[in-house]
Amino acid sequence: MTGDPTLSLSGERLAAVYRLACGPAEVGARARAICVEQTVEFPADLVDDPAIQAQIIGEVASIEPIAPGRFEVVIRYPVEAAGRELTQLVNLLFGNVSLQPGVRLQGFTLPGSLLRHYRGPRFGTPGLRDLVGVQDRPLLCTALKPMGRSPEQLAALAYRLALGGIDLIKDDHGLADQSFCPFAERVACCTEAVAQANRETGSRSLYLPNITAPTDEIAGRARRAKAAGAGGLLVCPGLIGFDGVRALADDEALALPILSHPAFQGGYCVNPDAGLGHGVLFGQLNRLTGADAAIFPHWGGRFAFTQAECRDLVAGATCSMGAIRPILPVPAGGLRLERVTELCDFYGRDCILLIGGDLHAQGADLVTTCRRFVTLAQANGAAG
Amino acid sequence: MTGDPTLSLSGERLAAVYRLACGPAEVGARARAICVEQTVEFPADLVDDPAIQAQIIGEVASIEPIAPGRFEVVIRYPVEAAGRELTQLVNLLFGNVSLQPGVRLQGFTLPGSLLRHYRGPRFGTPGLRDLVGVQDRPLLCTALKPMGRSPEQLAALAYRLALGGIDLIKDDHGLADQSFCPFAERVACCTEAVAQANRETGSRSLYLPNITAPTDEIAGRARRAKAAGAGGLLVCPGLIGFDGVRALADDEALALPILSHPAFQGGYCVNPDAGLGHGVLFGQLNRLTGADAAIFPHWGGRFAFTQAECRDLVAGATCSMGAIRPILPVPAGGLRLERVTELCDFYGRDCILLIGGDLHAQGADLVTTCRRFVTLAQANGAAG
Repeated sequence: MTGDPTLSLSGERLAAVYRLACGPAEVGARARAICVEQTVEFPADLVDDPAIQAQIIGEVASIEPIAPGRFEVVIRYPVEAAGRELTQLVNLLFGNVSLQPGVRLQGFTLPGSLLRHYRGPRFGTPGLRDLVGVQDRPLLCTALKPMGRSPEQLAALAYRLALGGIDLIKDDHGLADQSFCPFAERVACCTEAVAQANRETGSRSLYLPNITAPTDEIAGRARRAKAAGAGGLLVCPGLIGFDGVRALADDEALALPILSHPAFQGGYCVNPDAGLGHGVLFGQLNRLTGADAAIFPHWGGRFAFTQAECRDLVAGATCSMGAIRPILPVPAGGLRLERVTELCDFYGRDCILLIGGDLHAQGADLVTTCRRFVTLAQANGAAG
Repeated sequence: MTGDPTLSLSGERLAAVYRLACGPAEVGARARAICVEQTVEFPADLVDDPAIQAQIIGEVASIEPIAPGRFEVVIRYPVEAAGRELTQLVNLLFGNVSLQPGVRLQGFTLPGSLLRHYRGPRFGTPGLRDLVGVQDRPLLCTALKPMGRSPEQLAALAYRLALGGIDLIKDDHGLADQSFCPFAERVACCTEAVAQANRETGSRSLYLPNITAPTDEIAGRARRAKAAGAGGLLVCPGLIGFDGVRALADDEALALPILSHPAFQGGYCVNPDAGLGHGVLFGQLNRLTGADAAIFPHWGGRFAFTQAECRDLVAGATCSMGAIRPILPVPAGGLRLERVTELCDFYGRDCILLIGGDLHAQGADLVTTCRRFVTLAQANGAAG
């Protein structure tokens, strides 16, 4: 088939950084194979169109050894292949090659022409701080639990947590629209409970219901939450898709902060030789979706992220991405009050500390415990 | 907080089968931890409501050693925790625990009361066969490639592939709505090209455009495809979410067969000690979404699935799931005509063989090569 003379791309390219697990004798061939797999997915020698060969197929920009049997490979793809769609950008970066062992997407850089398609976080770090009126310490978050409680019981809990000064009070991510805790009732009760506490304290605690839902129900739940006075939305991109989150963030009729929960995303990041780097998954991709903060399991809790992975996550949450705002990391996963100082040392002031069960394990009144959490954060915030 | 006397669940439970990588001294504790993590996600000893303890928290049904350091653990969760939503079912099965190393979801069994929430595949194996009018051999599929071709060039290709007798002609999954191949034009050209070939041959080749797209554009693209006369839809659940596919399958105004592509799902399955079993990811979950066939990389191609994993995949595609139809496995990923016999030996008649580049590598006219593909499949179909 002869070439189409009209294929005339800009020549501008985005860069993907992969980490490959292989020997030095194979890495060149593997890098070239990724160039082909992610674009034409067709034997390169059968592509008889010189324009496609030159303009479409990925280019290896660099190959660097980073450890024995580990290489960092930068591949550049034409921006037009990504189009203006997050679904296609993700596909281009890591669609088919995700199915190969020993390949991990460790980062990516988009030129301005691509970044301009993405609004990114409406609030981000500065906006979230302004919303809750807290500038000088980590923000604090907790969850309404456990599953099985009625809406009224969760509302009573939300009231006390807000009274105690927790900035963000979110649904447990397992609360959807179950018969024992229907969404509409829960949102109505909990928004009112938090609003009541705010009236009493003069504070600005936010309630964030979980609006992860069937495709055709997400927008309705988000609007109901907005109308009820919810302070934000909890979403699970692993369940509704990255672009499902992007659609919510871009909805001008909502204009609510969005907290991203990592449910079902573990497959992408628990294996260091596959999937996505932590900075990519929790940082860069969340920012492209417009999430304002990203929950993840901090090292040393119930999960097994390493310190290096947590640092990579922060880098992805805060690195320069044109006009795309930085977002707040939300370390979580079995954290305890006694670790607040250590957490602040690790993350600095710009984070949201998420503690759940431990607030109930102190043998003290919950409101008192929450105030202690605030005090601990303030003490470390001032020092940090 | 005292118990709410109204928590009164049915007692009916669904079963999740996990494979754990750990030692015999730890497996009991790890299993109980999953029971808690996936439901209350709260320290069990702080759950002061006996009804929640008894009715909500997961139960360990069995622990069996399956290999040194590997155990199969069955955990049962209350059906009410899953609600009627695929997003929440997936969350319940593998939300948080996906983030822990050494845990793999290897299967699940849903009672009738849960299965009834899911229509499943509209066509499935029998329906797809009826659509293309082929009962006695594997179906055949190929892709329109490479990226960079114009709509008109892809249509010319589609015409020849249909003339040659390929049953399902799908978009390359990298074709979205890029400037060099806009969706609307591509769908219009290719549906007409395949229709023209069908008129000439009397056959019923189907064209399946890729409608993976931003959240707010999926339905519109699907409807445009339907109106143009497309024979089915290609979707990537890894990019639009499982429930994004379910919404398409359930749309009575579409009523089109759905072909699932595994782009971006590799993180879930390339590590045998994490993520999802192949039968779960490609089989059971695809069936719940209503996909009619599931593309995956067959062993021995450009990817690295094992034979055992491919067999597990077939099991998940065909096992009993109430009224949820079985679906066709679509082995792919660098397959060649010379492997057709081996593929038919492995999968039997009930599969769709997807060959892409190799159809163009025979040094013969493409239509001739396609007819050879059909003949090979017929010969093996008759024997199988």
